[in-house]
Amino acid sequence: MSKKVAVLAVNPVNGAGLFQYLEAFFENGISYKTFAVAETTQIKTNSGISLQTDDVVANLKGLENEYDALVFACGDAMPKFSENAGKQFNQDMLTVIKSFDDSGKILVGHCAAALLFDNLGIGKGKKVALHPFIKSVVKGCVGTDEQSVVEGNIYTAQTESSIPSLLPDLLKALK
Amino acid sequence: MSKKVAVLAVNPVNGAGLFQYLEAFFENGISYKTFAVAETTQIKTNSGISLQTDDVVANLKGLENEYDALVFACGDAMPKFSENAGKQFNQDMLTVIKSFDDSGKILVGHCAAALLFDNLGIGKGKKVALHPFIKSVVKGCVGTDEQSVVEGNIYTAQTESSIPSLLPDLLKALK
Repeated sequence: MSKKVAVLAVNPVNGAGLFQYLEAFFENGISYKTFAVAETTQIKTNSGISLQTDDVVANLKGLENEYDALVFACGDAMPKFSENAGKQFNQDMLTVIKSFDDSGKILVGHCAAALLFDNLGIGKGKKVALHPFIKSVVKGCVGTDEQSVVEGNIYTAQTESSIPSLLPDLLKALK
Repeated sequence: MSKKVAVLAVNPVNGAGLFQYLEAFFENGISYKTFAVAETTQIKTNSGISLQTDDVVANLKGLENEYDALVFACGDAMPKFSENAGKQFNQDMLTVIKSFDDSGKILVGHCAAALLFDNLGIGKGKKVALHPFIKSVVKGCVGTDEQSVVEGNIYTAQTESSIPSLLPDLLKALK
């Protein structure tokens, strides 16, 4: 039986990134549920399109055991993350990410995902793919120039343009 | 001054395709407006996510001269197109595509886009990239196995996965 994936979408989210994961899951019969990292399910893409997720991250908290993997879909919310780190939905997101890692579940993400993982002490000593601007910022993870890296339970891609190179391994792990 | 792009999104639309265009336009300062090929602006992605376009295709009819290029974002609506060809929104879509071509404007699309163009008598003798399943179906256009093809005003990609190979030429033409 294929695994079940929880997909976190920040607000705004990069639509190209988010939907490369979702359409690939859809086409491969992998079940997923989307969670807005926001107060409501109504969020926007970087490109300004309104979309509706299935639920909000607050309602994923405590239900992590229903899922086998977590995807972090990055977006223009992230450059301003430090300003908004205290908001409940961001705190909930961090709690959820940590919980998935604590259970050894698959963690997936592109762009700034590895920085979030790193800040939570996740992936210590593991190689990650991440946006070139933040390669030197990660401390516990080992930043690389790779398009994508799979190490242990951590699946990372450099940017949304690198997701195609991550998908084959990811889909194999989720089927 | 950069050009203005009208983006048609069928219902359901492949989100990975649609948002690769939109995020690239957004990041490159190219203005765009999205039009649902539907009765309302509320449509879904193949992957089941509800999203809202700026307008519907009926309202693009007659205003084609305000735009420099037209993108056709393909999706799971297309395998059933023949069943729904008589619907007003599909007729409006065909009228709009023809109108853009008649003015020599840039036409862009992936997957089944070239088949729509071909059915309208657009791109006669021009090479196109298109889904492998329909390569032999096009009559006036010349079907290829290329990831992407630019010939004259016609910009085509084989599938949504091939859009990255089309984007550099497309962005150059739209800037």
